[in-house]
Amino acid sequence: MNTFSSKLLEDAVNQFAKLPGVGKKTAIRYVLHILKEDNVQVMDFGNTIMRLREEIKFCKNCHNISDNEICEICSTNSRDKSLVCVVEDIRDVIAIENTNQYNGIYHVLGGVISPMDGVGPSDLNISTLIDKVRNREIKEIVLALKTTIEGDTTCFYIFKKLKEYELNVSTIARGIAIGDELEYTDEITLGKSIINRVPYSGVHA
Amino acid sequence: MNTFSSKLLEDAVNQFAKLPGVGKKTAIRYVLHILKEDNVQVMDFGNTIMRLREEIKFCKNCHNISDNEICEICSTNSRDKSLVCVVEDIRDVIAIENTNQYNGIYHVLGGVISPMDGVGPSDLNISTLIDKVRNREIKEIVLALKTTIEGDTTCFYIFKKLKEYELNVSTIARGIAIGDELEYTDEITLGKSIINRVPYSGVHA
Repeated sequence: MNTFSSKLLEDAVNQFAKLPGVGKKTAIRYVLHILKEDNVQVMDFGNTIMRLREEIKFCKNCHNISDNEICEICSTNSRDKSLVCVVEDIRDVIAIENTNQYNGIYHVLGGVISPMDGVGPSDLNISTLIDKVRNREIKEIVLALKTTIEGDTTCFYIFKKLKEYELNVSTIARGIAIGDELEYTDEITLGKSIINRVPYSGVHA
Repeated sequence: MNTFSSKLLEDAVNQFAKLPGVGKKTAIRYVLHILKEDNVQVMDFGNTIMRLREEIKFCKNCHNISDNEICEICSTNSRDKSLVCVVEDIRDVIAIENTNQYNGIYHVLGGVISPMDGVGPSDLNISTLIDKVRNREIKEIVLALKTTIEGDTTCFYIFKKLKEYELNVSTIARGIAIGDELEYTDEITLGKSIINRVPYSGVHA
């Protein structure tokens, strides 16, 4: 006999258990929560999921998730269109937007080069980045990828591809996180933070 | 400006963030996963959630989640209907079913008495349990509730209510979990396990 007393319950649990990091027990917790919720809210939830896959678009310019052909960031006039920040996915866009320190536009790769996972340069939005550099007035590309071998490989690949064009390529600064103590920082980070030291004028930049 | 580039994305993230233990970052992870999934699968997922709230029934006999008026467990002939195990919610039913050690039926309370959370006896399925005892041939009630003050209070409340009827009331055994070392077991559990010692006949029962 099945341990689930209802086929529908079992279906729902299995569907939730497909989400990343969600096991059977967590899935049951989610389903029990939904069963206690208001009918209208649950309908809304199910509907949003269905619309999500059907209606959501990716910006033709930067591949960010968007409600329109061109996303809000790319279509605003107040943004510096000659400055492009290259990121792995939309989570990075959200993280950088939250800092309120960046006024350029983005380019979402959709991943990083990772031969182990079968992800090559052609699986990522790299060719559209090159097109952008070729056809528009881009002054600087900021590479904001994670500091893993895959991230570094992707940085280097893009850097090589951009070599023939006249523009600045930079990466975001690696160093000691604010609040961290030197004693507990790993040697590589600490070493990099010494090499990339910046002029000090009374306050930390 | 909004940090989300899409209203629909924001909606979906907010909906997922309502699930217990899910924050914004986890919700974004779930949404990104869904966006990468197959269209049919996503439609299925949304549809299951909507059906869940509309179609799922609770067994009229034991309040377990069910596809029909009476759940599979209550309707099977092979089960001992004179043995009723009282549990907090359907997760406990699943857990006990997984042990393959129980052949009676269940009674799902839908919670435990918790004045702090405003849950009184009338909010739980206790009156239907009393009705069951009054109208049917029940020989034993097994109380399988959690070992918190709320669980113990609920046990005691039900115990008192059942006093006037002729039947056995038992609770599941508390003791040292299999694989645990005596040294690291808390005193209360260890004390209970000594008081409730069982005859040994060469193998642990």
